[in-house]
Amino acid sequence: MNRICKLFDIEKPIIQAGMIWCSPWQLASAVSNKGGLGIIGSGSMYPEVLEEHVVKCKQATDKPFAVNIPLLYPNIEEHVNTIIKHKVPVVFTSAGSPKKLTPILKDAGIKVVHVVSSTVFAQKSEAAGVDAVVAEGFEAGGHNGRDETTTMCLIPNVVKAVDIPVIAAGGIGSGRGMLAAMALGADAVQVGSRFAASVESSAHENFKNKIVESREGDTILTLKELAPVRLIKNSFYESVKNAYARCANVDELKEILGRARAKKGMFEGDLEEGELEIGQVSSQINEVKSAGEIFDDFVKEYHEARTELLSESANF
Amino acid sequence: MNRICKLFDIEKPIIQAGMIWCSPWQLASAVSNKGGLGIIGSGSMYPEVLEEHVVKCKQATDKPFAVNIPLLYPNIEEHVNTIIKHKVPVVFTSAGSPKKLTPILKDAGIKVVHVVSSTVFAQKSEAAGVDAVVAEGFEAGGHNGRDETTTMCLIPNVVKAVDIPVIAAGGIGSGRGMLAAMALGADAVQVGSRFAASVESSAHENFKNKIVESREGDTILTLKELAPVRLIKNSFYESVKNAYARCANVDELKEILGRARAKKGMFEGDLEEGELEIGQVSSQINEVKSAGEIFDDFVKEYHEARTELLSESANF
Repeated sequence: MNRICKLFDIEKPIIQAGMIWCSPWQLASAVSNKGGLGIIGSGSMYPEVLEEHVVKCKQATDKPFAVNIPLLYPNIEEHVNTIIKHKVPVVFTSAGSPKKLTPILKDAGIKVVHVVSSTVFAQKSEAAGVDAVVAEGFEAGGHNGRDETTTMCLIPNVVKAVDIPVIAAGGIGSGRGMLAAMALGADAVQVGSRFAASVESSAHENFKNKIVESREGDTILTLKELAPVRLIKNSFYESVKNAYARCANVDELKEILGRARAKKGMFEGDLEEGELEIGQVSSQINEVKSAGEIFDDFVKEYHEARTELLSESANF
Repeated sequence: MNRICKLFDIEKPIIQAGMIWCSPWQLASAVSNKGGLGIIGSGSMYPEVLEEHVVKCKQATDKPFAVNIPLLYPNIEEHVNTIIKHKVPVVFTSAGSPKKLTPILKDAGIKVVHVVSSTVFAQKSEAAGVDAVVAEGFEAGGHNGRDETTTMCLIPNVVKAVDIPVIAAGGIGSGRGMLAAMALGADAVQVGSRFAASVESSAHENFKNKIVESREGDTILTLKELAPVRLIKNSFYESVKNAYARCANVDELKEILGRARAKKGMFEGDLEEGELEIGQVSSQINEVKSAGEIFDDFVKEYHEARTELLSESANF
């Protein structure tokens, strides 16, 4: 049996990423109800908002689901209390060291997964006691690693270096991408961008339409001096680019970034002055669909591509 | 039958990249003799040197082989004359527009393949009449595209956009990587870095050992203002990085780059002041092996990974 399906008690090794401004209970429960693992993205939620989403998610599905916690989040203790109180079965942590939180969550009977962008951090996460890692490539949307290692290069390295299950992320927008990740040795896939442009995503309609319209080359990994982030090039990005052109220092970059830009772009729909975090794979997304349809498309295409690969014509 | 095997009349859809300073007749003929397609890298050869390599390659193998021509090469006419005179069956072109040269080569009965890093250029290449394209991701070594699109994201886009066969390149250092590329819809793979560290490669021993030693995160895509190139971070790269930090202009960057840095690093073995062009996948290369062994490893691992993917445990 697939190690991730066994670990989370799910049917299909497809995990919907917990993305800020995009991953409410409606999305998480829809994915879990299809037999995958849905994740509530708590990084953009106040403590009381997270609690509401957890409660509603439990009402909407009997299946396991997870909450993602960026470890830099200021109200992290309140989030953790909510998660333990409501017996959320799985937590994905990201953006920080999993050392402190992992034992606390594990003691409460919660499965813990940490998101990494390098093999060294995958090994450190395993040593910290996590149950699995997400290995996320350079092509992924939102915050990302400094080494720029792509999914094709990262996954085989991580699979070789750790014994715990590995979930591939970055560049996976279809069943073919999923099959490629499994070929590289991953146990499961985490899918962000494709679900950001779902009906159930809490992203602003403008942002969803922008994802659908975006073409190859429209995203870039930038602001490496602060926290590297992949976003769609727009007016805000032009300001950043101009700042780089005049050799702006970190303080100037921080000032340009300001506060709440991701909310402005992704939640309020300001496509020019907001920060539009999305992966390179957005070029493959051509329609806003329900999470259920997206899930079915993934499974169908995975099977079709697998059948092709198993045919005599791929037997060299 | 596999479209690339049919097009080139080869047995296995594995192509060894024509790399400057690394791809002599010894390497190309060894790969062709295994049933793949070997390529002589003419970009670092004077016209008389290329002719010698073509003649020796024909003596060393009865099988099809190719020559790679970077289209910015100054002595391109002499190279083309040599290729036509000696009836080289396949030419790979790169770094420029294939419009002018493609009809000339096709008229001489030569198959033409062009290397691209974006879907738009793949479509332009198809319109120019090439027989196939190599779609090369951000993780690839040496000169690369400006959009930074990774192999995971690029291959499905190109496969969807053109009718001609697509050869995947970038991040493919093993049979698992090959299987992943085929899962994404590629007809074949082009492998560079792994063969740069082969016994038959003409790279300096120091450079081969450096590839073996290099770890994840040791390469970077830089010099985007001149021609983007992926290389191993060393003293030369530190100079480039410092120049960026002080907002150096293009002329200063050109001066720092100077001339013949790739030769100095890759062929003369100066690991600090030379330019060491290699892909991210170098982190997976742990031993210098003969081209034949590398080829056999690829085929063996491809089969093992394919068998895993065929098993019931991968049937979701």
